[in-house]
Amino acid sequence: MMNHEQTKVLDCTIRDGGLVNNWQFSVPFVRELYDALNEAGVEYMEIGYKNSPKLLESDDAGPWRFLDDDFLQEVIDKKQTKLSALVDIGRVDEADILPREHSLLDLIRVACYIKDIDKALALVQTFHNKGYETSLNIMALSHVKESDLQEAFQRIARSPVDVVYIVDSYGSLFPRDIEYLTDKFRRMLPDKTLGIHTHNNLQLAFANTITAVEKGVAFLDASVYGMGRAAGNCTTELLVSYLRKARYHVRPILEIIEKHMIPLREQVEWGYIIPYMITGLLNEHPRTAMALRSSPDKDRYAAFYDRFMSAETPFMS
Amino acid sequence: MMNHEQTKVLDCTIRDGGLVNNWQFSVPFVRELYDALNEAGVEYMEIGYKNSPKLLESDDAGPWRFLDDDFLQEVIDKKQTKLSALVDIGRVDEADILPREHSLLDLIRVACYIKDIDKALALVQTFHNKGYETSLNIMALSHVKESDLQEAFQRIARSPVDVVYIVDSYGSLFPRDIEYLTDKFRRMLPDKTLGIHTHNNLQLAFANTITAVEKGVAFLDASVYGMGRAAGNCTTELLVSYLRKARYHVRPILEIIEKHMIPLREQVEWGYIIPYMITGLLNEHPRTAMALRSSPDKDRYAAFYDRFMSAETPFMS
Repeated sequence: MMNHEQTKVLDCTIRDGGLVNNWQFSVPFVRELYDALNEAGVEYMEIGYKNSPKLLESDDAGPWRFLDDDFLQEVIDKKQTKLSALVDIGRVDEADILPREHSLLDLIRVACYIKDIDKALALVQTFHNKGYETSLNIMALSHVKESDLQEAFQRIARSPVDVVYIVDSYGSLFPRDIEYLTDKFRRMLPDKTLGIHTHNNLQLAFANTITAVEKGVAFLDASVYGMGRAAGNCTTELLVSYLRKARYHVRPILEIIEKHMIPLREQVEWGYIIPYMITGLLNEHPRTAMALRSSPDKDRYAAFYDRFMSAETPFMS
Repeated sequence: MMNHEQTKVLDCTIRDGGLVNNWQFSVPFVRELYDALNEAGVEYMEIGYKNSPKLLESDDAGPWRFLDDDFLQEVIDKKQTKLSALVDIGRVDEADILPREHSLLDLIRVACYIKDIDKALALVQTFHNKGYETSLNIMALSHVKESDLQEAFQRIARSPVDVVYIVDSYGSLFPRDIEYLTDKFRRMLPDKTLGIHTHNNLQLAFANTITAVEKGVAFLDASVYGMGRAAGNCTTELLVSYLRKARYHVRPILEIIEKHMIPLREQVEWGYIIPYMITGLLNEHPRTAMALRSSPDKDRYAAFYDRFMSAETPFMS
C-alpha cells in the first residue's frame, strides 16, 4: 500500500469547468465551492485563469477567466485551501502578477506546448521571483516527439519550477502510458515534484490518476463531478474518497454535486460522450468533437467516426 | 504488449441491461443488436436469462427474461456471434434446457453466491452433459471470505466448467484488486479459462477489464454504452476499440448507440450516478441506491451517504 501523505489534490472545477460554461459561475457558487473544498481537505483550488483581457478576446466570459486580485480579495475568505491560477503563453501580462504577498494566489501554473518551453520557463522564473509556487504543464504530451521532450527536460531540470505536470490533454492515454511517462519524468527530473492532469474520454481519468498516485505522483488535478472541457476530468469526489489520508472528506463535495452540479449538467454538457471517446481513441484534440456537439449532427457518431477514417479528410493532418 | 488473440468479448446488453428496463427490448432492436455485434466481431451475445417463469414472478418482463428456444429460433438469424444465457440457482428448471443441438444457445452461464457453489456446479454438470459451453459466475466476490473461496476452488477445479468469472457485483474493486484476484484464480484454477464482469460505480469498469486482459483473462463482459444494472458495465465500444485483434470493429456499435442507446438512456438510467458511486465505495449492494433513485429523494446524496455513516442504521448489517 502506498502512503498517500504526500498527495495534493488540486480542484480545477472553476478553471477547466469554465471552458464548458464560459466561466459563468456566480460569486456565491465559487465561495461555496471554496468552502466545501476547504472542508473536504482539498489542498488547492484553481480558481481560474490569470490571462490578460488585453491579450485575448473576452466573449462575455465570467470573471474567472481573467482573475483580478482586488476582485479575489473581495470574493474569497481565505482558509486552508490554497489558490492557484493558470496562465497561457502569450496571453499573460507579467505586469498583472502582483508580488505573492499582495495576492491571494499561492501557485501559478504555466501551460505550454513543447515548442514554447523556453517562454514557459521564463514565466516560471518571473513568478518564482515574485514568491509564488510554480508548475509547468506541458500540454498534448501524447503528440510530443521523444527527442523534443528530452531537450525540454534538460531545461526544466535547471529551472526553479516546483511541480512538473503530465497532462493528458486529449484523454488518449492508458494506465500503462501513465506508468511509462511517470517513470520517464521521474528519471529525467529527479528533483521535481510531479503532477497529473487527466481527461475522461476513455473513462480512464480516475484510473490513470490512481496509476500516477501509486507511482508517487503528488499533485493530482480533479474537478467536482468531473466538470471540464469535453469529456471532463478525474472527479474530485472519487479522488478524495480513494486517497487514504485523514484530512480528506467526501461529504462536502457530495453536497456541492447535489446542489449545483446536477442542475448545471442539465444546462451544459461534459463527460463520456461518444464524439469525445472517438477523439480520445484517435489521439486527437477534442475541438472537432466539440464543434460536432454544437451542431445539428451532434449524435451522428458513425458519420463523425468515418470522417477520421477517410484518408481524404483534412482532419488527419 | 499482450497478445489479445485469446480474448472473447461477451456483450451482455440485453441480459444485464434488461435489469434496467425490465427486458423491454423490442424484437427488431435485439435483431439489430445481434447483427451489429456480429459485424463488430464480438464473440458472444448474452441474449437474456434462461430462468423459468414458473419459479419467478414475471412482472410484465420482456421475453429476454425467460428465454424460450422456439422464440429464439424465430427471432435470431444465427451468424458467427455465439449466444449465451444466464441462469440463477433455484430459478432455472433443468427440463427447460434442450440438448444443445436443438437450441441456438452455445454457452450457459451459472450465476451463484458462494454458499450455493455445490448447486451451481451440479447445474454446470447438467448443462455440460447437454453439450453446452459453461461458465460459473461467483457473485459478490468482494464479500466472500478467503476460506470459503479456497474450498470452492477445490470443487470448481474438479468440475467440467469451461470459464470461471471474477465478478465485481458491487463495482467496488480497484485495478490492484483485479490483479490480486486474477493471480489467485489463476493459481487455484490453472486449467480453467478466466472471465471478468465489472460494474462502473467508481468509473473503473473499463480500467479493471483492461487490467484483467493484461493478466491474460480471456472472457470479457461488456455492454453497449455500458447499459447494465445501476452504474452499468464496461462499455463494448471501448473494449472492442482497445483490443488489438483484427476481427473487432467499433463502427457497428457506434451506430447502435446513436440510433438506440441515446434515446433509451433518456427513458431509463444507468451509469456514473452518485448513489451508485457511494455504494461502490462502501462495497455495498446497489439495491439501496436503486431504491433511492426511484424515490423523490433521488438527488439527496449527502443524506444518503449519512445513512451509511451512522452506526444506528440497519443498512450496515
